[in-house]
Amino acid sequence: MASPSELLAVAVEAAKSAGDIIRKGFYQTKHVEHKGQVDLVTETDKTCEDLIFHFLRKHYPDHKFIGEETSAAHGTSELTDHPTWIVDPLDGTTNFVHGFPFVCVSIGLTIGKVPTIGVVYNPIMNELFTGVRGQGAFLNGSPIKASSQTELVKSLLVTEAGTNRDVSTVDATTNRINNLLFKVRSIRMCGSLALNLCGIACGRLDLCYEIGFGGPWDVAGGAVIVQEAGGLVFDPDGGEFDIMSRRVAASNIHLKDAFVKELKRN
Amino acid sequence: MASPSELLAVAVEAAKSAGDIIRKGFYQTKHVEHKGQVDLVTETDKTCEDLIFHFLRKHYPDHKFIGEETSAAHGTSELTDHPTWIVDPLDGTTNFVHGFPFVCVSIGLTIGKVPTIGVVYNPIMNELFTGVRGQGAFLNGSPIKASSQTELVKSLLVTEAGTNRDVSTVDATTNRINNLLFKVRSIRMCGSLALNLCGIACGRLDLCYEIGFGGPWDVAGGAVIVQEAGGLVFDPDGGEFDIMSRRVAASNIHLKDAFVKELKRN
Repeated sequence: MASPSELLAVAVEAAKSAGDIIRKGFYQTKHVEHKGQVDLVTETDKTCEDLIFHFLRKHYPDHKFIGEETSAAHGTSELTDHPTWIVDPLDGTTNFVHGFPFVCVSIGLTIGKVPTIGVVYNPIMNELFTGVRGQGAFLNGSPIKASSQTELVKSLLVTEAGTNRDVSTVDATTNRINNLLFKVRSIRMCGSLALNLCGIACGRLDLCYEIGFGGPWDVAGGAVIVQEAGGLVFDPDGGEFDIMSRRVAASNIHLKDAFVKELKRN
Repeated sequence: MASPSELLAVAVEAAKSAGDIIRKGFYQTKHVEHKGQVDLVTETDKTCEDLIFHFLRKHYPDHKFIGEETSAAHGTSELTDHPTWIVDPLDGTTNFVHGFPFVCVSIGLTIGKVPTIGVVYNPIMNELFTGVRGQGAFLNGSPIKASSQTELVKSLLVTEAGTNRDVSTVDATTNRINNLLFKVRSIRMCGSLALNLCGIACGRLDLCYEIGFGGPWDVAGGAVIVQEAGGLVFDPDGGEFDIMSRRVAASNIHLKDAFVKELKRN
């Protein structure tokens, strides 16, 4: 088995190569296909996934792979104890299509189902977030840590409206926001769950949750970065984080209990 | 009277000087005062307003001035036909305090109550938006234009939760969002109205509204930038934009009618 620092270096190289393609496409006219009414896949997305998987397979032919595009075509593989790369080649596709600068590559590696390596790279804002289990979290090479905020009322919350537009989902989403607006300082929605998690990791944001997002590729990279920055990743009901559940919450260590209490109201 | 290009150059110099102070403060520990429960004023905010007003007064001693900090102390001056600089030295103060990169200086000049010069500068992302009435809008010197989107369902909407947390305001806010989520592609909330308007101007965002924001300083710079980018600035009920009303909506020319129809449902 390669060392963690070797695995990280390979993941970073893959993310940077994909990032170059994203940066190029971001400023060009884009040919977009539809995937549901509000979800977009771009050519860039596909090119980047091919590039990343090819690169990782070349280095680690016996590892497993889970990705958004391959899963859309073949169904999401079950997560096993085997080393598994979980990749979102372009998180924030709506932002990408509109030219809004919160886009990123997200690459995570689980070993024994535990998030172990995380790389999230925003090539537009030139921010590279990395985390290795047991070895800390970094933004462009400098150590980062979750915020020290202890009060919900002074906390900045980030979430997303999601892509599901059935009445019960939208009502649940806006009811949660309605309740939380009385409890927190303010709310942000920026269109990339992977970058939202990195916002928790570097203390820009204090609270994050999302329920019913696309799949494990949205959180596999960010989860270990949050944990290694001293933050917590958990289920919105307060239970253990399940990377396959399409449910996630994150905060610093001080805010979790108060945050979960509010999330459970809805 | 100075020429528009002279006025713009002076406004840009003021914005860049203030931006240097904001950039420095953004990465430092900040000493924050409270102004209501969720609104913050920082030392940086005050230093920047003093700097900008001093600089503009030196160049234009007979012009009038309206700013957030001075208005908080002395009440908002009435807007007259006189050339009037309307300044938000630091829009996105919550973001500033939390280290979230959507912060900016906003400087607008009205002549005969008409927004004539607009400068919005984000010193963290290094984006300088400028507009001069009749002479176009620019991002870092390159021309920008509003999006060409014609369908609400493919449009990206930006708004804010605001700082008012009374039950009727919060309910109205989340009811509007609930309705709009069925009509648009997705929603963003990034914490700076001035930058939201610039997002409309450069086509990253298609639809923007906010009701009950701080004051004319949040929109005076952005309004002319949107208009000069070929976009529209209007009241959320579809009527004429009133810079003093604390109500604003903006979009490209295609989307206004459909957008207003939805805004009027709530």
